[in-house]
Amino acid sequence: MTDPDSPPPAGSSSSLAASPTRVSIRVRYAETDQMGVGYHGAYLPWLEVARTRWLQEHAVSYRELEAGGVHLPVIEVRCRYLQPTHYDDELVVEAAAYRYRRSGIGFEYRVVRPADGKLVATAETRHAAVGPDGRPRRLPIALRDALERSIPDDVPVRR
Amino acid sequence: MTDPDSPPPAGSSSSLAASPTRVSIRVRYAETDQMGVGYHGAYLPWLEVARTRWLQEHAVSYRELEAGGVHLPVIEVRCRYLQPTHYDDELVVEAAAYRYRRSGIGFEYRVVRPADGKLVATAETRHAAVGPDGRPRRLPIALRDALERSIPDDVPVRR
Amino acid sequence: MTDPDSPPPAGSSSSLAASPTRVSIRVRYAETDQMGVGYHGAYLPWLEVARTRWLQEHAVSYRELEAGGVHLPVIEVRCRYLQPTHYDDELVVEAAAYRYRRSGIGFEYRVVRPADGKLVATAETRHAAVGPDGRPRRLPIALRDALERSIPDDVPVRR
Amino acid sequence: MTDPDSPPPAGSSSSLAASPTRVSIRVRYAETDQMGVGYHGAYLPWLEVARTRWLQEHAVSYRELEAGGVHLPVIEVRCRYLQPTHYDDELVVEAAAYRYRRSGIGFEYRVVRPADGKLVATAETRHAAVGPDGRPRRLPIALRDALERSIPDDVPVRR
Repeated sequence: MTDPDSPPPAGSSSSLAASPTRVSIRVRYAETDQMGVGYHGAYLPWLEVARTRWLQEHAVSYRELEAGGVHLPVIEVRCRYLQPTHYDDELVVEAAAYRYRRSGIGFEYRVVRPADGKLVATAETRHAAVGPDGRPRRLPIALRDALERSIPDDVPVRR
Repeated sequence: MTDPDSPPPAGSSSSLAASPTRVSIRVRYAETDQMGVGYHGAYLPWLEVARTRWLQEHAVSYRELEAGGVHLPVIEVRCRYLQPTHYDDELVVEAAAYRYRRSGIGFEYRVVRPADGKLVATAETRHAAVGPDGRPRRLPIALRDALERSIPDDVPVRR
Repeated sequence: MTDPDSPPPAGSSSSLAASPTRVSIRVRYAETDQMGVGYHGAYLPWLEVARTRWLQEHAVSYRELEAGGVHLPVIEVRCRYLQPTHYDDELVVEAAAYRYRRSGIGFEYRVVRPADGKLVATAETRHAAVGPDGRPRRLPIALRDALERSIPDDVPVRR
Repeated sequence: MTDPDSPPPAGSSSSLAASPTRVSIRVRYAETDQMGVGYHGAYLPWLEVARTRWLQEHAVSYRELEAGGVHLPVIEVRCRYLQPTHYDDELVVEAAAYRYRRSGIGFEYRVVRPADGKLVATAETRHAAVGPDGRPRRLPIALRDALERSIPDDVPVRR
């Protein structure tokens, strides 16, 4: 019996689902802090950029999703910082989705720096589907289909 | 003849209207950048905190204002940075309002660091009053009254 | 045998260590997003404010810590969002520290909204102690002592 | 005689110097506020992205500049918001530089939304050249040369 609340089973620490979405980000000066590195809080908007790109590529743009009355607020975020990043670093954020519980959606992320090939962060977010009133909503069919397609027979691995 | 678009006449560079609102801010680590100072963009939310406090003290909370269908989007901001600020600095942001054109509102700000008495920044923002549809709205009467009261017989000075 | 990397044992979901540090935060307009709630990424700076206050109350200010050549970069953050927050909400962020592995430090947080008594978020961060060169450093003795004192005979509970 | 402190002479409100640098930005969800628009404070990092790109294209990367001991802190920013922007809008930020006073540098910006061709904001920033100690420094020769080249015989226009 599997606890529906538990994370997906652990796998290799450096892989995501088969075909993740990739977006390229450059660390902005505004995103640095006085330690001289990319501020840890700045990574959350980067994950978001990759996540919304995944939605657009696989199902529906987040803009349309919200216009249709469905929001996907973050109910949990977890991020591990493996290497510092610096101003003007180019980073690639990879995102892959999985069905989370009955009507939610989860994303897994890897943040990689192509210049040295280093994995600089891994992360995971979980989202509920809610209406403008904050009450649970079903995921749109296009998104449910995309989730089915994106996870052939095994769930995405976990860092 | 006065250009309605021009700034209020210049005055002493270190004074605001008679009784400005004062809020205390502490520079967060998140608000520093790799130069080791308070990031210049972080000042705008600080001004906003002082501005919304002014509204609350003199007329109506911004929360109520929006609930009543009136938004005051920033249509112009200007900020001069006179001294660097640092992580954990306590700053006092002073704000005073003036009527801007027919249906708008302007704010002037001084950011002071009590520890050394230095004026670290001066700023000014201008706002239109619009409805949820983005179309011009009249300022609520309570706010118009407050603006009348806040400017006895001379306009607030300009940095 | 306990995995030094594992989280502290689970306890009551609504308590932290005996005497957490408490800071009061008000949700800034800048911290909202178009869903009309406090942006999930805005919570990380709030946790930071509580965390640095804990350090100051129990051992040494973060400013002095950095001046002494010790940084505590976040190596992992986890946050659960239980209730939405709104512009101008007053929130109380509670933080308590525990020793994390040999030379690191961990913090646990609860974010509570006094107006309705709701627990709006729980979070946890883990930090390495490093020097300006990014290499591991020992925690200063004052901080190690504080960690000993802060955890009488049981570790802080986990959400 | 020209007041060195005064803005450059006014010109057409919709043009910059001959060949501005252009960068493309997409409004992030994190950059929206509860009014449902791009938060006014989010524009400052966008300007910065365009400004640092200008430096890189014309003279030297900002990363190298700082490595060489020269910082260009913002001493003044001014931004006019002409049209609201929305989540996921693609925006083009144009930046052009001019020599500001003896040893400073100024930038002018236009933010345009290609989808509807609208000019959504104009802005201007001014910068001092300082060393790590905060004391005035001369601009590097490569940058001075670039400033000479970028302004053939007329100064950049001002909105």
